[in-house]
Amino acid sequence: MNNLGKLFSIFVFCITLSCHDEGEKTVVVSNEPISVSNTSLTHVEPLNWWVGMKNNTLQLLVNHPKIGFTTPEITYNGVTIKKVHKAKSPNYLFIDLEISEDTKPGKFDIIFKDENDTVETHTYQLLERKNPANDYIGFNSSDAIFLLTPDRFANGDPTNDVVKDLNEVEIDRTDGYARHGGDLQGIIDHVDYISDMGYTAVWPMPVLLNDMFEASYHGYAITDYSQVDPRFGTLEEYQELSLKLKEKGMKLIMDQVANHCGLEHWWMKDLPSEDWVNNQKNYEEHFENWNGETNIVSNHRRTTNQDLYASKRDNQEMTDGWFVSAMPDLNQRNPYMAKYLIQNSIWWIETLNLGGIRQDTYPYSDKNFMRDWAGAIMTEYPNFSIVGEEWSSNPLLVAYWQTGNNNKDGYESNLKSTMDFPMQHAIIDALNQEESWDKGFVKIYEGLANDFVYPTPKDIMIFPDNHDMSRIFTQLNGDIPNTKMALATVLALPRIPQIYYGTEILMNDFDNPGDHGLIRTDFPGGWESDQINAFTAEGLTDNQKNMQEFLKAVLNYRKSSKAIHEGETIHFAPFKGTYCFFRILDDEVVVVIMNKNKEAITLDLERFGELGLQGKQLTNVISNETFEWADSMTLEERGVTILTTKK
Amino acid sequence: MNNLGKLFSIFVFCITLSCHDEGEKTVVVSNEPISVSNTSLTHVEPLNWWVGMKNNTLQLLVNHPKIGFTTPEITYNGVTIKKVHKAKSPNYLFIDLEISEDTKPGKFDIIFKDENDTVETHTYQLLERKNPANDYIGFNSSDAIFLLTPDRFANGDPTNDVVKDLNEVEIDRTDGYARHGGDLQGIIDHVDYISDMGYTAVWPMPVLLNDMFEASYHGYAITDYSQVDPRFGTLEEYQELSLKLKEKGMKLIMDQVANHCGLEHWWMKDLPSEDWVNNQKNYEEHFENWNGETNIVSNHRRTTNQDLYASKRDNQEMTDGWFVSAMPDLNQRNPYMAKYLIQNSIWWIETLNLGGIRQDTYPYSDKNFMRDWAGAIMTEYPNFSIVGEEWSSNPLLVAYWQTGNNNKDGYESNLKSTMDFPMQHAIIDALNQEESWDKGFVKIYEGLANDFVYPTPKDIMIFPDNHDMSRIFTQLNGDIPNTKMALATVLALPRIPQIYYGTEILMNDFDNPGDHGLIRTDFPGGWESDQINAFTAEGLTDNQKNMQEFLKAVLNYRKSSKAIHEGETIHFAPFKGTYCFFRILDDEVVVVIMNKNKEAITLDLERFGELGLQGKQLTNVISNETFEWADSMTLEERGVTILTTKK
Repeated sequence: MNNLGKLFSIFVFCITLSCHDEGEKTVVVSNEPISVSNTSLTHVEPLNWWVGMKNNTLQLLVNHPKIGFTTPEITYNGVTIKKVHKAKSPNYLFIDLEISEDTKPGKFDIIFKDENDTVETHTYQLLERKNPANDYIGFNSSDAIFLLTPDRFANGDPTNDVVKDLNEVEIDRTDGYARHGGDLQGIIDHVDYISDMGYTAVWPMPVLLNDMFEASYHGYAITDYSQVDPRFGTLEEYQELSLKLKEKGMKLIMDQVANHCGLEHWWMKDLPSEDWVNNQKNYEEHFENWNGETNIVSNHRRTTNQDLYASKRDNQEMTDGWFVSAMPDLNQRNPYMAKYLIQNSIWWIETLNLGGIRQDTYPYSDKNFMRDWAGAIMTEYPNFSIVGEEWSSNPLLVAYWQTGNNNKDGYESNLKSTMDFPMQHAIIDALNQEESWDKGFVKIYEGLANDFVYPTPKDIMIFPDNHDMSRIFTQLNGDIPNTKMALATVLALPRIPQIYYGTEILMNDFDNPGDHGLIRTDFPGGWESDQINAFTAEGLTDNQKNMQEFLKAVLNYRKSSKAIHEGETIHFAPFKGTYCFFRILDDEVVVVIMNKNKEAITLDLERFGELGLQGKQLTNVISNETFEWADSMTLEERGVTILTTKK
Repeated sequence: MNNLGKLFSIFVFCITLSCHDEGEKTVVVSNEPISVSNTSLTHVEPLNWWVGMKNNTLQLLVNHPKIGFTTPEITYNGVTIKKVHKAKSPNYLFIDLEISEDTKPGKFDIIFKDENDTVETHTYQLLERKNPANDYIGFNSSDAIFLLTPDRFANGDPTNDVVKDLNEVEIDRTDGYARHGGDLQGIIDHVDYISDMGYTAVWPMPVLLNDMFEASYHGYAITDYSQVDPRFGTLEEYQELSLKLKEKGMKLIMDQVANHCGLEHWWMKDLPSEDWVNNQKNYEEHFENWNGETNIVSNHRRTTNQDLYASKRDNQEMTDGWFVSAMPDLNQRNPYMAKYLIQNSIWWIETLNLGGIRQDTYPYSDKNFMRDWAGAIMTEYPNFSIVGEEWSSNPLLVAYWQTGNNNKDGYESNLKSTMDFPMQHAIIDALNQEESWDKGFVKIYEGLANDFVYPTPKDIMIFPDNHDMSRIFTQLNGDIPNTKMALATVLALPRIPQIYYGTEILMNDFDNPGDHGLIRTDFPGGWESDQINAFTAEGLTDNQKNMQEFLKAVLNYRKSSKAIHEGETIHFAPFKGTYCFFRILDDEVVVVIMNKNKEAITLDLERFGELGLQGKQLTNVISNETFEWADSMTLEERGVTILTTKK
């Protein structure tokens, strides 16, 4: 936003149009004085743009008292105002610009006029693009992603812990739902740790402004899509994080939220139009949850997106209901909202040089919008990656959302990656269940068999845990060998693995399983006063150190393992309490052997004859011991053995 | 088989070829005498054939001592021997015939010669087809199928109970695994009952010869694919059953078994070649089940059919392992076996004027053969129906096997119908679980949502129970309202419903749940000595009569309900312990309301406003009471309410 300082008063008698009357002109007759200021337009978004984008159009959202009564003008070579759209609220204008191919980067004024008087001037900037569009390489199966909760990872800058003019001012590390002071600087400070662990990408939960009265720490209640929350730091720090990751060959993934904003979002007090947000008024009449209680929130019946038989009512309650009552549901069928969100995403990709987007609550948004949103991004950045969150253990839904699925209803998502909740559930079941014909490892075996429906299984994201569920160690009831088996599986499957921070040191929520505050607990060593420092391993228990070393070894092997990134997969049905799968590319074979037997067991390797490993030397990825693949192998203890032909 | 009576002896010195050397000729040098008889060739199959088939080729399997040393000749207008294939065993010949389009029906001799001597003559018959190929209309969503166990339904002819020259001679109605005497005549006698109940198709379990030493009653261990088991009756009775059903507008579905035969099958003592049956010799070396025990049987890992990562070993153990140790696995990759099975199926369709085939253990056979088998039948009979059994609660597998699924691996099954085990499980879960956000009716709601992946949901077969599982009343723990809800769901969904005999009178296996002998218990009234007669309702309890009347009412409504056969489906998410779905076609709307509340509950009908039922008169399908659809509806008791706008 600019900071000019001129103030006017004029009177207008006006006719306004709702947001949907795209393209029509309104005659503004000035009869009454209105006050507008060009010292600082309240909001102009995107904050800037670039020349040389594939899509040569741009729609500016302008929000300022009574700006709707003015007419904007621009004089700049290559930039043309194609249309100006007024909103139901007089305090908005949407300006369609065309930016021709040969436009030079630079600044220009947008002059807002009432008849012949200039009532406001805003200086807008077109930047040169720093990187070719094809250089935005999104995360893929060669990556391993470190997911973290910025408020809880590390407090790199205690001076930004409390920002007085925001609604939630206190920090309290004893309260799981209060802010703890973690920030972008904390992540920047520990990029080396993350890199050394073997991760190649970082996904921090959202860091944009969440000016909510409580529980603002998690970041999913965005109140300004263009601003970094000052308690997390600055835009410059966000850019510094990206740069530092890039220097390490790592990718920054942004967690974006197109479905809903926070109730304290600035536009909630003055919406451009009633349909900017869904169900502002009438929800009391319509919404009842499964148990008959009236509620504004979504019915969460996510299957309505695919269901051939879903009633219109269920469908509408699903996509138009609010995610939770503190998060208004954005109406992406409103074309101005749709453009706003698409441009906002592109603005962040370009501004941060992103290596991917994680899109929250994917099936809750309008699915045609999500198609257009992802399509616009992928058109602009063909090598980019987006992962959408569909929390379902049904592989049909995971497949539905992945690009190239040839859905029978014709829906093409443009979404490269989806989240593998089905396989995550399968891994947990596999390890928590006693082995039998249809229980235990067979859950992974049959879960993996479902890959035949996915367009590209290796582009799907797998995870042992995330910010919304207990860490794997808790899910597996504190069983260390099982936790190692789960992590090895996640890291060796044909997938993009993602692991939540702290999993490496056995962080858990045994005290209150499933509690979000506890799941998002502080990473030890992230705060100066911490007695234990997981970054240096100081004060960690032997079990913690052991798990950290285990994960580090597997991640670092994975980093350069083409067989894991791109190789063929072969697995064998569970056998006598063991389960084995192989990843193969050229002369690299990675063998993952999982064993639930408490007593030593000898495996006849003839069973795996088709792999052609006979006589080969393999190296244990964890212990570095070598093993000659011959007739049999004795597994001494319960746990996972990872062998490779190439080390 | 013919019954001519001439006997020869000749000596041959021979070279035989294995069955796979299709098309090559063998020089037979006669040095030693062999005995062949043309009084009665042991086996010539198919027993006869027809002129005017779309496929103008026919391959005769000839089995007779030393017939492999002879050369067949045929002199008949339009019939040409194209090739003669010898087998590893000298007692087989496979004769490829071409039957030209203008061939007339009639008989001709096949003369088997050794050099210039006729050593055997077999008279073969080409019949005229009774019905145009397009008139073989298979079961579809307008049908409701009655599945029965012939040995246990009704003993229409006590004179065939014991057939002395078969291996299992005794009958013992007190033993669930012995024969009880039910037969084809018993079904014929009660076609009226089945028809009056409202069923439109009958699927008897297999009635072909099962000359096994024990447990031969179930019919799945076939020992001669061309013969009716004489304990079930005769071919003529089988034809009479079909005819009687046709007269009632009903369809006969044949239960066929391409995957395996019975261990006592005549060819097991002298296989055409070692690879006629899988794993005759080497299984001990290879097969170990999940727990390490050596076994000849399949590993039953059915996902290997689809699994991109399945090891060759798992795949082979799945399809080549025996279904059970008494049932050798047929090798359909052997082209003579493949032709044999395809022709056998067509022979039965044509001989019995079938209205469909149910194919057993579908995923256990070679899947490329199953594609060819179904393809050959559907090419010959374009309006026919085949349903394949894939016992899996995974909709991905059900979809995979249905024709038109555009599988990513390119597999096209040619199979019109699959079995909806996923929805069957969903119905059971839905009714057995307490209602909550993610339990109870939502299992049906979400299960039905999966229909979006099926090529044609209405061609899929749904069932509350079958011959391999406890009847629905047992599965639902003896709960009558829940049983009615399950049956109403099965009968009103966009599916082909199938119900097991005795379900209508609450037959159950509470005494030993899951016991196959008990599941296949005798239908009361089927035996003359029975005190209770379910055909007349004599001696039934009130609950039994009530269920029989309930099912009769729903089935008979269904019979003419175009909305259920072909209509659109709309459903609403479970709400306050209720779940409602609607079937709609033109002016017919069928409303199914399920209610788990024990106390009266009033539903606000505004919730269903999009159906446009306001002000309409609806009739209760069971009670025939009328109801005006207005603001609300009070459900007085737990159970199902079925309303229709058309009655």
